[in-house]
Amino acid sequence: MAAPATEIEAAQPEVPAQGRTGRAGGVRARVRAELTAEIKEAARCQLAEVGAADLSLRAVARELGMVSSAVYRYFASRDELLTALIIDAYNALGAEAESADAGVARADLEGRFRAVGRAIRRWGLAHPYEYALIYGSPVPGYVAPDDTIAAASRTSLVLTGILADGHASALGAPGAELPEALRTELERLGTQLGGDVPPPLLARGLTVWMGMFGAVSFELFGQLHNVVDERDALFEFELDRWIGLLELR
Amino acid sequence: MAAPATEIEAAQPEVPAQGRTGRAGGVRARVRAELTAEIKEAARCQLAEVGAADLSLRAVARELGMVSSAVYRYFASRDELLTALIIDAYNALGAEAESADAGVARADLEGRFRAVGRAIRRWGLAHPYEYALIYGSPVPGYVAPDDTIAAASRTSLVLTGILADGHASALGAPGAELPEALRTELERLGTQLGGDVPPPLLARGLTVWMGMFGAVSFELFGQLHNVVDERDALFEFELDRWIGLLELR
Repeated sequence: MAAPATEIEAAQPEVPAQGRTGRAGGVRARVRAELTAEIKEAARCQLAEVGAADLSLRAVARELGMVSSAVYRYFASRDELLTALIIDAYNALGAEAESADAGVARADLEGRFRAVGRAIRRWGLAHPYEYALIYGSPVPGYVAPDDTIAAASRTSLVLTGILADGHASALGAPGAELPEALRTELERLGTQLGGDVPPPLLARGLTVWMGMFGAVSFELFGQLHNVVDERDALFEFELDRWIGLLELR
Repeated sequence: MAAPATEIEAAQPEVPAQGRTGRAGGVRARVRAELTAEIKEAARCQLAEVGAADLSLRAVARELGMVSSAVYRYFASRDELLTALIIDAYNALGAEAESADAGVARADLEGRFRAVGRAIRRWGLAHPYEYALIYGSPVPGYVAPDDTIAAASRTSLVLTGILADGHASALGAPGAELPEALRTELERLGTQLGGDVPPPLLARGLTVWMGMFGAVSFELFGQLHNVVDERDALFEFELDRWIGLLELR
């Protein structure tokens, strides 16, 4: 619900520069953080209602009862707002995956993988529009800046961590041969990810990773409609297949 | 490029009802088919430029130099046009999958699966916006009608056919246990699909299917950007893993 324009306008810190004290600066920062959060929340509602392509700073301003120029002080463009939402979504999913992984004994690779997989699906089901924003169709005219990379990597790093721990203990690198160019590229990727995961295992990890997001996307994007209703059970079945493919047990 | 309004307007059959002969009716049908195709082609360009959510009959009319009311004679609403594009896309992909499957000897299950997988990825890479329309984020406010089901099933039926042929010959049903509710549902689904595929094998088929579309979506939707450039080789690696999971060899 939109608050009356006057209230929100009044909340904006219009402290003259020469009058700023430490305390006024603190208030200013707090108000800025609050307004930024409110703008992003209103923008997330827009994702659900009109989709990312039609996200509009003007509509967000209207929803919050702010003047457009005030919103532009927080986000200079639609793309900047979109980038903030994308980073938030990746971070939220990454935090879920990390927390799920951290809740299982380090040596229980299978349990860790299962917990992470369930957490990813659960987050997607609870946040379908944010999931679509990061794993769905690209937004026409929008190119994600490099700012998104760190947040986007968090979830993948959890899987790589499980694979690295597995490789360091008993888990062998499955023996599939890789073409030289792919092997070289995956060696570099493994180093970037900071884990000790041999290329053939990393290739399996990618296969499984894409399968997992493929499964969540199929469920969220309507491809299982009229096909499978027993989706918890199907996902558990898939988790077992992926665990087998990664030789986590 | 938009043609001058007058040309296209002139192409519309304004034959008075009482003056229609068989020949005029034939012309009318032909012109209708041509205009329908042109409207859909202009709409596909819009998918690329503004995305499915912003597909607009008015903009299509403008692009073609037609008056909006003329376009509405062919498609009563944005959703009707969207449905036509979705059906076309599913049919185009389905035809590619069927043709790839038909090009390999029936007994060569692995070869058939590999050809179909490559055809799906190739079609996606060549038609990224149509792929996104059918496998990407849902379009806000749009609900696909049942009209789309037959076209949507074509590609899946190709996989089911390979699995059914495999089961009928040597391919055993992998022994994974399924919870009762999922087994019952997959038995029903298998019957609907007309194939003789036991539930555990169908469950593996779904896992692989979602993995394959997950892989194509990751590639098309930008998730492999800065991650893997050797995408042909990665997909071939994945095909081998999926073939192993389906025990096609």
